[in-house]
Amino acid sequence: MSLAKKSAAQKLANKFIVIEGLEGAGKSTAITYIANWLALQNMPAENIVYTREPGGTELAEKMRDIVKMDVQGETLQDKAELLLMYAARVQLVEHIIKPALTQGKIVIGDRHNYSSLAYQGGGRGISLPLIHNIKQLALGDFKADFTLYLDIDPAIGLSRARGRGELDRIERQALDFFDRTRNVFISLVKSDEHAVTIDAGQTPELVEQAICVQLDKWLASLA
Amino acid sequence: MSLAKKSAAQKLANKFIVIEGLEGAGKSTAITYIANWLALQNMPAENIVYTREPGGTELAEKMRDIVKMDVQGETLQDKAELLLMYAARVQLVEHIIKPALTQGKIVIGDRHNYSSLAYQGGGRGISLPLIHNIKQLALGDFKADFTLYLDIDPAIGLSRARGRGELDRIERQALDFFDRTRNVFISLVKSDEHAVTIDAGQTPELVEQAICVQLDKWLASLA
Repeated sequence: MSLAKKSAAQKLANKFIVIEGLEGAGKSTAITYIANWLALQNMPAENIVYTREPGGTELAEKMRDIVKMDVQGETLQDKAELLLMYAARVQLVEHIIKPALTQGKIVIGDRHNYSSLAYQGGGRGISLPLIHNIKQLALGDFKADFTLYLDIDPAIGLSRARGRGELDRIERQALDFFDRTRNVFISLVKSDEHAVTIDAGQTPELVEQAICVQLDKWLASLA
Repeated sequence: MSLAKKSAAQKLANKFIVIEGLEGAGKSTAITYIANWLALQNMPAENIVYTREPGGTELAEKMRDIVKMDVQGETLQDKAELLLMYAARVQLVEHIIKPALTQGKIVIGDRHNYSSLAYQGGGRGISLPLIHNIKQLALGDFKADFTLYLDIDPAIGLSRARGRGELDRIERQALDFFDRTRNVFISLVKSDEHAVTIDAGQTPELVEQAICVQLDKWLASLA
């Protein structure tokens, strides 16, 4: 048995970090900050797996297509949307995330379970305990090891997202949809000791600094 | 208020009849028998809507494609399959079945909820109470008004289905998968006063006769 202290890269092996947040909160940029921070911890790039939800496997991407699709005369029902999100998540977790973690890799997820609670629960109004039941059925106790929630005023986030191009079916919802979504994100983070809020309304430099501070604190807490 | 007795066609308005059974049980043929019986009751053909599950709307058919798909290196997880089945069913019920029933039509379904309990529960081994929870989330108390279950020995059913051409991903399951599926169908019918079993191993003439006897009895029971 070695008495040597674990390196940062060893502590981070088989951890699943998730970025959550509304459209335009800066999730993609935040992921580059996390990648830079991981490089500083000497985590080899080939040991980092990036995922994006919904999607990430061939079948899950086909489910994502259905969720994003506009069909003449047929609305995707809220409950069908919820079930599809979890079907896609099961594929991603079983085929990509769990195998990567088992190999000692670190997985960085662009959205995960909290997005379903926030969007389908907060936004669409499906009962949160009910979504939690579906989550337990679909994924059991599997969850993120650390969640960074990028908090943004929906009006600011959406105007940023609009600047990027055309909005999809979900992004075209009214502002109060995103207010309800944000409120659920905030309350989820409050009751999860492995989740933190980052003020995404700050300058990029301050957002990066806040993310690094939180990652440092989390790393220090790992055995 | 009219004292005239309702006609058979009036009694059958807004009823949802479902045919369930294993591959090769003869569901398609049974549907033609039901159509003939409905013609005898003077039900206008334009008042009959036929559905097939999974599928039946543009989005539900895309979900059906995913369920039937063979993807190199990626198995559709049992739980993802279950969630997709219910997502497709929500679309079909909300966009096709309920609107047709509201218009006073009769809907004849080739498979419905019992198939999920039988295949994903019996066949795949997902807990039946758990599937029932998903059903309640997805569809609430919506259910078939009358279910005809065509019971067939799986070995006979599959050899019939094989005679029709290549088997899809689900049809290629081992025989014991279909034995377990059949057992759940049988127990569901036993505990449902609005469901009956038809011996589908008989000659087509006897199957048609048995279906007509059951439909006549059911019709007589309607107000």
